[in-house]
Amino acid sequence: MTHHLPEHLVAGYRTFLEKRLPAERERFRELAEAGQHPPTIVIACCDSRAAPETIFNSSHGEIFVVRNVANLVPPYEPDGEYHSTSAALEFAVQALKVEHILILGHSGCGGIHAALSPNADPLSPGDFIGKWMSLLDPVAKAMNGNEQMTSRERHAALERVAIRHSIGNLRTFPMIRDLEAQNKLTIHGAWVDIANGDLWSMDPESGDFERMNFETA
Amino acid sequence: MTHHLPEHLVAGYRTFLEKRLPAERERFRELAEAGQHPPTIVIACCDSRAAPETIFNSSHGEIFVVRNVANLVPPYEPDGEYHSTSAALEFAVQALKVEHILILGHSGCGGIHAALSPNADPLSPGDFIGKWMSLLDPVAKAMNGNEQMTSRERHAALERVAIRHSIGNLRTFPMIRDLEAQNKLTIHGAWVDIANGDLWSMDPESGDFERMNFETA
Amino acid sequence: MTHHLPEHLVAGYRTFLEKRLPAERERFRELAEAGQHPPTIVIACCDSRAAPETIFNSSHGEIFVVRNVANLVPPYEPDGEYHSTSAALEFAVQALKVEHILILGHSGCGGIHAALSPNADPLSPGDFIGKWMSLLDPVAKAMNGNEQMTSRERHAALERVAIRHSIGNLRTFPMIRDLEAQNKLTIHGAWVDIANGDLWSMDPESGDFERMNFETA
Amino acid sequence: MTHHLPEHLVAGYRTFLEKRLPAERERFRELAEAGQHPPTIVIACCDSRAAPETIFNSSHGEIFVVRNVANLVPPYEPDGEYHSTSAALEFAVQALKVEHILILGHSGCGGIHAALSPNADPLSPGDFIGKWMSLLDPVAKAMNGNEQMTSRERHAALERVAIRHSIGNLRTFPMIRDLEAQNKLTIHGAWVDIANGDLWSMDPESGDFERMNFETA
Repeated sequence: MTHHLPEHLVAGYRTFLEKRLPAERERFRELAEAGQHPPTIVIACCDSRAAPETIFNSSHGEIFVVRNVANLVPPYEPDGEYHSTSAALEFAVQALKVEHILILGHSGCGGIHAALSPNADPLSPGDFIGKWMSLLDPVAKAMNGNEQMTSRERHAALERVAIRHSIGNLRTFPMIRDLEAQNKLTIHGAWVDIANGDLWSMDPESGDFERMNFETA
Repeated sequence: MTHHLPEHLVAGYRTFLEKRLPAERERFRELAEAGQHPPTIVIACCDSRAAPETIFNSSHGEIFVVRNVANLVPPYEPDGEYHSTSAALEFAVQALKVEHILILGHSGCGGIHAALSPNADPLSPGDFIGKWMSLLDPVAKAMNGNEQMTSRERHAALERVAIRHSIGNLRTFPMIRDLEAQNKLTIHGAWVDIANGDLWSMDPESGDFERMNFETA
Repeated sequence: MTHHLPEHLVAGYRTFLEKRLPAERERFRELAEAGQHPPTIVIACCDSRAAPETIFNSSHGEIFVVRNVANLVPPYEPDGEYHSTSAALEFAVQALKVEHILILGHSGCGGIHAALSPNADPLSPGDFIGKWMSLLDPVAKAMNGNEQMTSRERHAALERVAIRHSIGNLRTFPMIRDLEAQNKLTIHGAWVDIANGDLWSMDPESGDFERMNFETA
Repeated sequence: MTHHLPEHLVAGYRTFLEKRLPAERERFRELAEAGQHPPTIVIACCDSRAAPETIFNSSHGEIFVVRNVANLVPPYEPDGEYHSTSAALEFAVQALKVEHILILGHSGCGGIHAALSPNADPLSPGDFIGKWMSLLDPVAKAMNGNEQMTSRERHAALERVAIRHSIGNLRTFPMIRDLEAQNKLTIHGAWVDIANGDLWSMDPESGDFERMNFETA
C-alpha cells in the first residue's frame, strides 16, 4: 500500500507498532475509555530537541502538552482573538483540572534568538515570528543592550527571563490566580540544556534556576 | 536538594538520566552544536495520549512539533495579532526549511467535542476554547445537524474534516502555497485511534483516510 | 608551649604534621632544594570556599597562586604604584616561566556583590573594596541596569564577564601578549559553583563557559 | 568534550570530584547558602609550596586567604590607588568580621630574594616586582649590608623581619588598630620552613619566632 507519509514517519510508526504498542495495548485502551487525567500541563517549545516526553520519560497519558515557539504564555486577553495557548490552558485547568503547570524552556532556542535579533529581516512578509516574539519585548531590550555577555550567555539569560515572564503572564488569568491561591494549582519553571541533558528547575521563591542532581537526593 | 517540580516529572527525569541519556549523550551534543534539521513539522493535539514522538517513535531532533488543542491551523492573517501556530509554521518552513508538514489528529479529541457542543457553557469567562474552536465553525455546523450519525461517528468524522480544513488553511499561506507548487514541501494528514494505536493516513488526492498496515506491504 | 596561633590553625597544623607530612617529606625537601617549577599560575578569589588547591586537588608545588578579592587582574600600568597582582604575574611569567595562566572565578562572590551594589556605603572610610572593585566599572553597569535577571543571575553573569574582562587586561601586558603570540603561554578562564562543586571552563574562542563533565571523556 | 584547561588541572579536578566532593557535598551546599564565616584571614605568599590550606589542613570555608608575592601588607594609604591587599583586609575585617589575621611567611621566598638583590635587572620593563618589593625598602637595607650572615641567613632573617614589618603596617589601618584595642581582633605571624614542614610562630610580645612542636605539649 501507499502510506502517504514521509518515510521516516512510516518507519517510526512501524517500530512503534512492533516494539512499544504490544506492551501498552491495554493501557491505550483503558485511557481511551476512561479519558485522560494528566496531572500536569507542560508548555514547551516546538524545537525537535526539546520534547518533554523525552526529557521526562513520560508515559502515555501522563502530560498534556502545548508546544509553541519559545514556550511562551501570552497575557490574559479575554476580548482578543482566538488564542491557541490560552485555549489549551483553559482546557487543562478547567476541564482536566490539572494540578501543575510547567513552563519548560531550553538552550539554543531559535525563537529567543529572534527576540535577540530585533533588526533581522522578517522570515516572511507576514512576520509571524516577529509578532509572536514581540511578547518578550518588555524583557528582551535590557538583554539586547548588554555587550559584555557573550551571545550564548544573553540567550541563556533571556531563555530564563522569558520563563519568569510567562509565569507572570499565567498569573494574569483569573482562573489560574484563583486556583493557585487555593493551593489547587502549582506553577513551575524549568530549563533544559539540550547539549547535555542537564535540567535546571526554578526556585519558586527567588526565580533562580538550579541544576537538578541526584547525588544527594 | 529540593527539586521544585512535580514528583512524577522528577522521577521521569531521573529515568531519562539513567536509562536514555547515557546512550544518546553524543547525539545531544552534536545536535546542540550543529543545530536542528528536522525534515518534518508535525501539528498535533495537546492531548496526553497523542504525543507524536510516541506514535512515530521519533528520535531526538527528528520532528519539529506544534501542539495546540485539536491540532488546528488558522488561516493566513498577516495583519492580525500574534499567532502561535502561524509563527511556528513560518519558523519551520522559512528558517528550518522542512520538507513535510503533517497534521496529526486523533480519536476522542476534547476540542472536537467542544466544537460539537455549541451550546455548552464556556469553560471560563474568557471562553478561550470557544474562540479557538470557532476556527472550525465553517465545517462543524453540517456535522452538528446530522442526527443520523452516532455521537462517536460525528466526532470521528469532524476530526477528519478538521484535518482537511486545516490543510486548506495551510494553503492560504503564500510561502506554503509557493513551496508546494515547487515540490519543495509536501502536506500530509493522519489520524490516530488512541484506543488501539491504529494510524490512518490521508490520501492526498481523495482526502480519504486509510488504516496503515504492514501485513501486505 | 604557647602556640601563639588561633586554635583551629594549631589543630590543623597538627593534623598536617601527623597525616600528610610523613608521606610527603621527601617531596618537600626536593622542592625546597630544586626550587618551585609550577606549570600554572592561578588567580583566584580570597573566599574561604574557593581555594584552588581544593578544587584541583593540587599537590605541593603544583600551582602558583594569587588570591585577591574577586580574582581580578588590573590593566597594565607601568607608571603606577606597586601592584600586587601585576608583581605576581611578572614573577610567574618571567622568573618561573609558567606555561598557563588561569583566572578562577566562583559563585557567590562578595566582591562581585559589591560591584553590583554601587550605592552601598563604603566598608571603611578608606573604601578599599570600592576602589578595588572599580576595576569592573567598565563592565558592571550594563548588568546593574538589568532588572529582569534575578540577583543571583546578575551575580553569576558578572562573575563570568569579570573573568573575560581580566583576561582582556592580561593581554595589555606586553610580556603576556608576546608569549601568547609565541604559543609559550596559554590563558584560561574557569568558574566554580561553590554550592555543588561544578566547574565551568571557558571556551577560549567564544568566551562561553561550559560545565565540565567526564561522562563522555 | 574539550576541557579548555591545562591537563594537570583537569586531572586534579576529576580527582576532587571522585574522591573529595562526595563526602563534602552537604558542607558545600550549606556554606553556599549560609555564606562564609571564616574566623581567620591568612596573608600568604603565592609560592606553590606555601599554600596555607596545606600547612593548616584547612577545611572548606575555614580561612579567607590573600596570596601575594612575599605575603606583604602595604601601609594604610586611603587616598592611593586600588590596593588588592588592603581591599581584602577591609572585606575580611569589616564584612566578614574575622577574629584573627595571620601573616604566613616561608623559607626560600623568591620575593625576599628580589628584595635582597637590589641591583638585579628588572624582570620586565614594568618592573612590577621591583616596585612591589620596595615595600620592604625601610627594612631590607640593613640586611643587605650585613656581610657577616650567610645568604641563607639573610634570607631567613628578612623573611621574619618582613612579617613584623607587615604587622606594623597592619596597625596603620584605623579599623584594625581599633578592633585590636577592643580585643576583637588578634594579629599573628608565622613562618614555615618548606624544606621540612616546620612551622614557627611569632611571640606577639617579643616578636621572636619559635618552632612549634607537640612533643612537649
